Amino acid sequence: GTGADNNLYINQAIVFIEDAIQYRSINHRVDSKSLWLYRWYYSRTCQWILSLTITIILALAFVEKPSSLTITSDVRYRLPAWNPPCGLTESIELLCFLVFMVDVSVKSYLIGWEEFWKNKWLMAYILTLIVSLTDWIVSLSFFCTENVRIRRILRPFFLLQNSSMMKKTLKSINSTLPEMASVVLLLAVHLSLFTMFAMLLFARTKDDQQDKEWVGYFRNLPDSLTSLLVLLTTANNPDVMLPAYSKNRAYSVFFILFTVLGNLFLMNLLTAIIYNQFRGYLLKSVQSSLFRRRLGIRAAFEVLSSLKETPANAQQSYVSIGALLQVLQKVEMDSRCKQAIMRSLKMCSCDQLSAAQFQKLFEELDKDAIKQHPPSPQYRSHFLQKMQFAFGHPYFGYLGNVVALANIVSICVVLVMDADKQPSERDDFFLGAINCFFILYYLLEMLLKILAMGLKRYLSYPSNRFDGLLTVILLILEIATFAVYGFPHPGWRPEFMGLLSLWDMVRLVNMLIVFRFLRIIPNMKFMALVVTTLLDLVKNLRAFAGILVVVFYAFAITGIMLFKGAVVPLGNTRKKCDFVALLGHFEAEIIYCLLYLPFVNLICRWAKIYFVAWWLISSVIWVNLFIALLLENFIHKWDRRCHREPLSDIEYQRTVELMFRDVLEEPTEEELMEKLHQHPHLQLCR
Amino acid sequence: GTGADNNLYINQAIVFIEDAIQYRSINHRVDSKSLWLYRWYYSRTCQWILSLTITIILALAFVEKPSSLTITSDVRYRLPAWNPPCGLTESIELLCFLVFMVDVSVKSYLIGWEEFWKNKWLMAYILTLIVSLTDWIVSLSFFCTENVRIRRILRPFFLLQNSSMMKKTLKSINSTLPEMASVVLLLAVHLSLFTMFAMLLFARTKDDQQDKEWVGYFRNLPDSLTSLLVLLTTANNPDVMLPAYSKNRAYSVFFILFTVLGNLFLMNLLTAIIYNQFRGYLLKSVQSSLFRRRLGIRAAFEVLSSLKETPANAQQSYVSIGALLQVLQKVEMDSRCKQAIMRSLKMCSCDQLSAAQFQKLFEELDKDAIKQHPPSPQYRSHFLQKMQFAFGHPYFGYLGNVVALANIVSICVVLVMDADKQPSERDDFFLGAINCFFILYYLLEMLLKILAMGLKRYLSYPSNRFDGLLTVILLILEIATFAVYGFPHPGWRPEFMGLLSLWDMVRLVNMLIVFRFLRIIPNMKFMALVVTTLLDLVKNLRAFAGILVVVFYAFAITGIMLFKGAVVPLGNTRKKCDFVALLGHFEAEIIYCLLYLPFVNLICRWAKIYFVAWWLISSVIWVNLFIALLLENFIHKWDRRCHREPLSDIEYQRTVELMFRDVLEEPTEEELMEKLHQHPHLQLCR
Repeated sequence: GTGADNNLYINQAIVFIEDAIQYRSINHRVDSKSLWLYRWYYSRTCQWILSLTITIILALAFVEKPSSLTITSDVRYRLPAWNPPCGLTESIELLCFLVFMVDVSVKSYLIGWEEFWKNKWLMAYILTLIVSLTDWIVSLSFFCTENVRIRRILRPFFLLQNSSMMKKTLKSINSTLPEMASVVLLLAVHLSLFTMFAMLLFARTKDDQQDKEWVGYFRNLPDSLTSLLVLLTTANNPDVMLPAYSKNRAYSVFFILFTVLGNLFLMNLLTAIIYNQFRGYLLKSVQSSLFRRRLGIRAAFEVLSSLKETPANAQQSYVSIGALLQVLQKVEMDSRCKQAIMRSLKMCSCDQLSAAQFQKLFEELDKDAIKQHPPSPQYRSHFLQKMQFAFGHPYFGYLGNVVALANIVSICVVLVMDADKQPSERDDFFLGAINCFFILYYLLEMLLKILAMGLKRYLSYPSNRFDGLLTVILLILEIATFAVYGFPHPGWRPEFMGLLSLWDMVRLVNMLIVFRFLRIIPNMKFMALVVTTLLDLVKNLRAFAGILVVVFYAFAITGIMLFKGAVVPLGNTRKKCDFVALLGHFEAEIIYCLLYLPFVNLICRWAKIYFVAWWLISSVIWVNLFIALLLENFIHKWDRRCHREPLSDIEYQRTVELMFRDVLEEPTEEELMEKLHQHPHLQLCR
Repeated sequence: GTGADNNLYINQAIVFIEDAIQYRSINHRVDSKSLWLYRWYYSRTCQWILSLTITIILALAFVEKPSSLTITSDVRYRLPAWNPPCGLTESIELLCFLVFMVDVSVKSYLIGWEEFWKNKWLMAYILTLIVSLTDWIVSLSFFCTENVRIRRILRPFFLLQNSSMMKKTLKSINSTLPEMASVVLLLAVHLSLFTMFAMLLFARTKDDQQDKEWVGYFRNLPDSLTSLLVLLTTANNPDVMLPAYSKNRAYSVFFILFTVLGNLFLMNLLTAIIYNQFRGYLLKSVQSSLFRRRLGIRAAFEVLSSLKETPANAQQSYVSIGALLQVLQKVEMDSRCKQAIMRSLKMCSCDQLSAAQFQKLFEELDKDAIKQHPPSPQYRSHFLQKMQFAFGHPYFGYLGNVVALANIVSICVVLVMDADKQPSERDDFFLGAINCFFILYYLLEMLLKILAMGLKRYLSYPSNRFDGLLTVILLILEIATFAVYGFPHPGWRPEFMGLLSLWDMVRLVNMLIVFRFLRIIPNMKFMALVVTTLLDLVKNLRAFAGILVVVFYAFAITGIMLFKGAVVPLGNTRKKCDFVALLGHFEAEIIYCLLYLPFVNLICRWAKIYFVAWWLISSVIWVNLFIALLLENFIHKWDRRCHREPLSDIEYQRTVELMFRDVLEEPTEEELMEKLHQHPHLQLCR
């Protein structure tokens, strides 16, 4: 019937607009039931359950058997980690797998059979699930005593496949790989040529006294390779050349040449390549997001225009405003955007919208969220007005900053004076009195500011929220201190007691004050720019961080599995290996596993390869990706700063999409329509 | 008289064109005598003498008294350095000063009195000379026993002021300083806040067992600052956090936060800022070079157009081709360019040139030098033609590369087999036979290639020159070996004798073969791109390297002067300090002077400041400048590679000017004329 048809069209439009908002692909089934399933699947609850499941399955590693998560990492002091009984973690895992199976079936159903075969991510998802389940069954049939658990290494895949941003980023990284591989190959050639050269140069001679370099670093091929590889990370920088250098200064030419070529040229070339390649790909992915948004809006327009109530128009299709309003009421979107669109709709005099008008209406979605602070209260009393003027004035804020600086300086003075004293010799009176005074000032400042600005306006500034929160915490801590130990007086030296001793509490108060000092930053122009760049970067970095977590998790699990049996007996070495595996600082691995582990020869062969791989991925590639993103972000921001002066009282929320807006190309009508006609499930009337 | 006037105009035109070629300013005196002096001053001989003087005065440091230039740096083995008698180096110095005084007087005279007062570089030059001479007199009156010699620190200034490119680069760096200072300030704030935080976190407690972190790294304010500063260089990366980490894993959060914020964000922000700022300034300086060139050409046109022989033209000025030919014959310039200009002149049908035509004629100067290889010889004999086809074919080159690879692999195998053997156990027969075979092949390859290409064409390729030279050296070394020790036979193990033992000689031969392997690089496309980028970079880096030398020289001399008296008695420490001062690897200093020197407390205070300054300048700023230049260069090159396919047989010689050519703006006629009318010494007729 027409009513049912109309209803279907309305529902399709709703879903397409929601797709556009979330930058999702519109290539899914569009019949009534599928649309219901689709909206249910992308509802907040469902997505939240999915995220929770992913978190749980990743977090399992911390309680599972070969984990070493205890407070201290020192094997001498630490208690044995809690060992969950066989079947506990396994049943949680099974629950997670069940959720994932529902997830993959819904996803596969929604995109349809044909699309499913083209989607490699879904195939990999199913494969991962099958392997994991098989491994799970094997695990249970051995009563959890088996050593190799493949499914653990596969776990981060669930995190990866759930984030479209991460998949996009991974695709970008993937496209950069050939170039990176070339440089890594060049690095390998560089390394091997210099290794040969070093072995020829520092060969064994008759005189054992002269052989220190050979004995220490170039005894055989693996040793030489290792020495020079570590030199590439600059971890053993002067040590490796000291024996040769003390024999003849000219030998240093070899090492300098190696370092300059390897570190300065090749490593930075990697930065240049990644920056150059990645710049384009990031833009491209943002461009495709924009295309998805425009496509979703256009699809909504097309289905709405085929509503039977619209008068058939041979030349151009139109959408009635009534239908759009009906759709808008049911669409889940940011209320600010919705209101803005409604407002524009009401201002529109006509009662039909063309495709261009329709598209323009939804451009509100691309706009910066402009945040308006609520107004200050209007006081009637003259005195209050004066107060408001005085304490709302920027100078009052500057005074607060000066006081915070004074507080920092006084803490510093106390620290320097107390540095070498035994705890029993220390007199905490001075610190206590200072804290008391400054906290009172901060409290007063907060109250006066609230008086001047009104609570709502005060809280609308993030810096004030930060300030206020810290002040309240400081106040509570201070009151607690006084309640337990009384007011400070000369010779005030309370004993250590309970969970938090006074000493700890005073320290805690002072640490918080150090943080409070950060409020000075927005007042300095350049610092503010830098800090906002960094904050933007953190936003844009989520996808990268996710991928790093994925890689790190896989590496940590592999490391634990590889070195578990072999390393446990060697107390001290174990500590270090486990430390590096979980911490992942590349210098840590390189230094520890290449300098300390050689004593443990068996493990070291594997450890070397493992750590070199980790160093390449985490340090070389990831750090360079980070630099590329930072360069991109900073240069864009810097250029924009020169273009326009920032308006006061307005804060922009920038995302990676907005950053590139001025260089993005709008998709043309033809491209959109061509893509729409390729939709596997949607049959357009015309 | 008119003849004398005409002669002056011709001379002026010659000098202006030479100025344009060398990108020199044209703001100098233009009367006949000054022009003669100007050409004499900028003649090759004069400039060569000046460069030699600068080299000599800089090299003096290696023979002067507190120098430690000996073959070995080990204080136990080294002989006392040669100590020149008082007055020897001083008289050489005086000679250099005399040359500099002539230099500065000529320069000052040539630019004229008014310009002199505006030229800060010349003022600084004179000041430096006065201070140096005063110091020299003081030195002689103390019979060279005085300790502080200021003039040594000033010496690199002479290098700096003589290079316009270095002055330009310094100006660019100078403009970037405010931004850099902001980030360094941010780094300082970051460091001090975290230091305070660390001191509060790792305070002394009652239990001495728990205090390891405090004892080791955070005992007092200077210690804490040092620990965190060194952590910023990642030199003490995991060590500094191990005691705290083994107490409680949560402490690692502090260190990770510090490293991520400091190393990943702030340090890379410095890269971003320098890249962003420097990009503009490099372009600007190239733009100003272009302006100087256009201005010189235009000035030459103007003076030539006022020659009396030219018919007066009210509307436009013209230059007769005869006058230009007269000028061109006397101008010193690249013969290729000269010929190209002459050729265009002859092809020109008119006998007068307008300003635009004149300017266009000299655009030849901006063009890439296109190098055409001479043709192969034409053989009549059928056999020789076939030989020529076979050995001139690229496949023959590939075969050579395969042989070189085989050679490398065989050396590698021998190295691995011989690695652990005593020299007395080694049998050099295999290596000797391999070398003999491969060198014969290389010789044959060279001869056949010369046969196929002809000697001239063979030598016109740099890769062939490199190959040929190495082959000849290898051949000489091999013949020398055979002459001394006879042909290799099993058990061939000649004794060590003379200056170069056989063992050394064979090693030397093999090292050269390792180099020869590099000829493979141009055959791999990506590697060729990378290598040409690097070679370009080296060309463009000369100014940077010069500035680094200047800074390094000043630092080394300061270091020697500061730590001379204090460190000499402490044998081992001395070695290290001297090592780092002369070598200048930042990790070297940081590790050695902050980890080893703390035992020598007196020096350490000064050493810390000295080395932190050196670390900031050499490693942080210079390395970032380098990365900026590399990024710039690589991205330009990469973009160009996509634009056009490289033509075979044509090699471009790229300079920093050419790199930016597509973004440079041509100066307008008005700008040029306005600048010409501001010339302090040239009065134009109109």
